[in-house]
Amino acid sequence: MIDRLIEKIKETQNPTVVGLDPVFSMIPNFIKQECYEIWGKTPKAVSEMFIRFNKAIIDSTHDLIPAVKPQIAMYEQYGLDGISAYLKTIEYAKEKGLIIIGDVKRGDIASTAAAYAGHIAGVTIEGEHFDLWKEDAITLNPYMGYDGIEPFLKPCEEFDKGLFILVKTSNPSGCELQDLDVSGEPVYNYTADLVKKWGENLIGEHGYSKVGAVVGATYKEQGDDLRKRMPNTFFLVPGYGAQGATAKDLSGYFDKNGIGAIVNSSRGIIASYKAKKKHEEEFATSAREAVIEMRDDLKGVL
Amino acid sequence: MIDRLIEKIKETQNPTVVGLDPVFSMIPNFIKQECYEIWGKTPKAVSEMFIRFNKAIIDSTHDLIPAVKPQIAMYEQYGLDGISAYLKTIEYAKEKGLIIIGDVKRGDIASTAAAYAGHIAGVTIEGEHFDLWKEDAITLNPYMGYDGIEPFLKPCEEFDKGLFILVKTSNPSGCELQDLDVSGEPVYNYTADLVKKWGENLIGEHGYSKVGAVVGATYKEQGDDLRKRMPNTFFLVPGYGAQGATAKDLSGYFDKNGIGAIVNSSRGIIASYKAKKKHEEEFATSAREAVIEMRDDLKGVL
Repeated sequence: MIDRLIEKIKETQNPTVVGLDPVFSMIPNFIKQECYEIWGKTPKAVSEMFIRFNKAIIDSTHDLIPAVKPQIAMYEQYGLDGISAYLKTIEYAKEKGLIIIGDVKRGDIASTAAAYAGHIAGVTIEGEHFDLWKEDAITLNPYMGYDGIEPFLKPCEEFDKGLFILVKTSNPSGCELQDLDVSGEPVYNYTADLVKKWGENLIGEHGYSKVGAVVGATYKEQGDDLRKRMPNTFFLVPGYGAQGATAKDLSGYFDKNGIGAIVNSSRGIIASYKAKKKHEEEFATSAREAVIEMRDDLKGVL
Repeated sequence: MIDRLIEKIKETQNPTVVGLDPVFSMIPNFIKQECYEIWGKTPKAVSEMFIRFNKAIIDSTHDLIPAVKPQIAMYEQYGLDGISAYLKTIEYAKEKGLIIIGDVKRGDIASTAAAYAGHIAGVTIEGEHFDLWKEDAITLNPYMGYDGIEPFLKPCEEFDKGLFILVKTSNPSGCELQDLDVSGEPVYNYTADLVKKWGENLIGEHGYSKVGAVVGATYKEQGDDLRKRMPNTFFLVPGYGAQGATAKDLSGYFDKNGIGAIVNSSRGIIASYKAKKKHEEEFATSAREAVIEMRDDLKGVL
């Protein structure tokens, strides 16, 4: 997966992942009305809105980007219909050749972690294998240590999948635990060392492990340090755009060959028609323009 | 929710929560065959197996216990059908008057955390409110700090719901981050102080906050210390039974009135027919016996 991701980034010359995180208020009114007419004012209608919205964004951007990152929470809040929209979005994006990073941030232990590993491993029922979630990679939470990660490592190898484990997050209160001082070093450095160790047997041909890290864009110096600390760990970088980070902040997140990180933008792309005060019919073309702007912005520092 | 939970514990004289964590290998063959005949060897069949299995366990134990804790991972691995079984399990347990602790261990920030809060807040579509998940409380991960918790606090108040936030987990590698030494204190003490602070405005009439903590049963001394450190925080305690902890280890997790904690057992109850080498038709009555044994075991130390 990590080699495929790097090859797609090289092919598109664009280390951008589009966050498919639809929010009800982003959905253009004409899509809302179409769905209300068929399904009423129900979670099913919202689920169908999300699918239509996402498909249009994917159609409009898939040739420019290597990957999409649907955030499952946005769908999960709408219950079973919401999860259905998450799965259909993944299916459609895969058909268009995109790599899927499922932003699920699961974290548990032992048999429970093994069950969550179904996201990348699928399940086997009486000898028949079902890949029900279809993500190429997922995000995980490290708070419970190796017991929570180990069940995912074999599926990464067996099914060529990937992980991105939270190291340093982009939000202001991420510091409350992550920056606590342990003998002169912040907790997130310990997390970084664990993530590095967990991935050391899964390094692909481009020198990066299938076990990657989430490193927020909003703490530039810390990102630069983490790049040096974990040279074989690919970074998934949230926080660009809407959260305030710019391309200039990110130069140190990449290696000398300009690889090593993929930068997420969600609202900044999928809701750009709102920020740019465009007509709502233009939401998908506006997303395309936003992707091109972001690609060119990132190119400037690589 | 926390007051209701404490009242149910007093009523049943039993601080036991049954972990409804079905695993394929636990399901009696006669249930498997019934479901295969109708739905084939499919995720839908497994979903129906889980529902039938859980309903029988609930029927057999609901008068003895205050709450159940379905672990969503066990269901989630079976995709949409699995999630459907999770929801139907919750619905059935609620009908039987049980309090539902959804073990989802979600953790994210800002608008994403607000979306996950849909688990306890429901969603509103054009003025109509839908409670799609129906959990009374859920578990959360603290790694991202207050930004990941704040969106859940208002729904706790508004809809009388609860949270249990990971502080000290029961698994061996929980120490890797949780026990790092910060100026002479482990990271989990800092987490404990945060959890205490986050819940200080949500304390109910029995003196406990709607914001509780997950404190594993397997580290007795640490549990005792945490009880003193966070006197208004209710504990959800995993690790009893299958993970090795006994009632004796847990006396310090309760307050002087014998409240303050609810102890989870999953396999030890729902798969007790296997451990006790009983006939598979007896799986539900065996679960009832296991609940009674656990209740009496815990009574011995309270």
